[in-house]
Amino acid sequence: MIQPAFDPPLFTVFGFVILILSLKALLLGAATAATRGRLKQFLNPEDAQWLKGAHVNPDPEAVARIGRAHRNDLENLLLFAICGASYVASGASQLAGLAYCGLFLLARLLHTLAYLTRRPELRRNAYTLGFLVIAVMSVHAAVVLITR
Amino acid sequence: MIQPAFDPPLFTVFGFVILILSLKALLLGAATAATRGRLKQFLNPEDAQWLKGAHVNPDPEAVARIGRAHRNDLENLLLFAICGASYVASGASQLAGLAYCGLFLLARLLHTLAYLTRRPELRRNAYTLGFLVIAVMSVHAAVVLITR
Amino acid sequence: MIQPAFDPPLFTVFGFVILILSLKALLLGAATAATRGRLKQFLNPEDAQWLKGAHVNPDPEAVARIGRAHRNDLENLLLFAICGASYVASGASQLAGLAYCGLFLLARLLHTLAYLTRRPELRRNAYTLGFLVIAVMSVHAAVVLITR
Repeated sequence: MIQPAFDPPLFTVFGFVILILSLKALLLGAATAATRGRLKQFLNPEDAQWLKGAHVNPDPEAVARIGRAHRNDLENLLLFAICGASYVASGASQLAGLAYCGLFLLARLLHTLAYLTRRPELRRNAYTLGFLVIAVMSVHAAVVLITR
Repeated sequence: MIQPAFDPPLFTVFGFVILILSLKALLLGAATAATRGRLKQFLNPEDAQWLKGAHVNPDPEAVARIGRAHRNDLENLLLFAICGASYVASGASQLAGLAYCGLFLLARLLHTLAYLTRRPELRRNAYTLGFLVIAVMSVHAAVVLITR
Repeated sequence: MIQPAFDPPLFTVFGFVILILSLKALLLGAATAATRGRLKQFLNPEDAQWLKGAHVNPDPEAVARIGRAHRNDLENLLLFAICGASYVASGASQLAGLAYCGLFLLARLLHTLAYLTRRPELRRNAYTLGFLVIAVMSVHAAVVLITR
């Protein structure tokens, strides 16, 4: 039986990064609801009736934009959480792991900023950085899982 | 090397809660497909041809409602799974952990019930309770990860 | 304190399966962006302006199809990752666990193939196989968590 290597500081740093990004995603979800409330435009007819607003479908652009940023966040956070947990449990290099965590955190903070402030080049670059971190980290974890 | 604390009963209870909520989400996914089949209205043209129904886009409201409940479930389940796993692995208080698990389970069962039966106040309250559990649990786990 | 059973080969195989499926989901996400770029049709007005394309809403069918395959993938990958991690940590049967991993990998590779090549029966069967693996694996893990 192999004990997984929950070494500090990698385990702690990885935990921190996914907690911070989870909180950001949580806030984006709440921002969607808050923006619907501010605009008084609701996707559910019962909400429109309850809060005396309009029933719209699809969401207005301001809500849909936050929703797209939120969805992109969750898609990438899921994959990073899976690949990162596999990486940490595989016992691969701490230094590389710390670099992956730092780069991914940076990439996703910039992605949200770029989405909400409508800067498509920054958004594309931030998305690509996060994408590359997940891809490289996955392959790295897979190689360590095979060869250990 | 720090061994993570997979103490029963918190580890067992956390495992149970995410398994139950996963099964609920799985059923919502299947209900989407079943409702499309019952209404004979399909999002994919090849499905409409195969099952002799209509090709519609977007989904009819009955399907879209289950889809919204499903999506909201998965968004929150992902964040709870991440934050909960970090919490369990951090070795923080069992008693608080059990309370978080119980409250989150309750919140998400009520959320689905409220969504499908069109009770917007209950849905809002259930969503808020789940939201607060994730937020408090994350901060709690982060504090323990830093200070241990 | 119970030590979770991170036994090879189940732990390694589970890690591999979720890494492979994460990479597939990552590629579907990138394919969405690439197809938008190829068609010069963008959901974000700032992208249309930047890349000199058209601003459309909703996405064209070719993009929406990849998006649906991607979303279905992530929904199922999330549930499999949660249930699979609970299963591995519960210390349940390795042989059954290996079978679940193999069947789920097969199911989800076929699902994506069937979605992109518009074969609805194969898609339905692949989805159902993945669904059953998650459901059976969850119940199996829950039983072991209770009775251990």
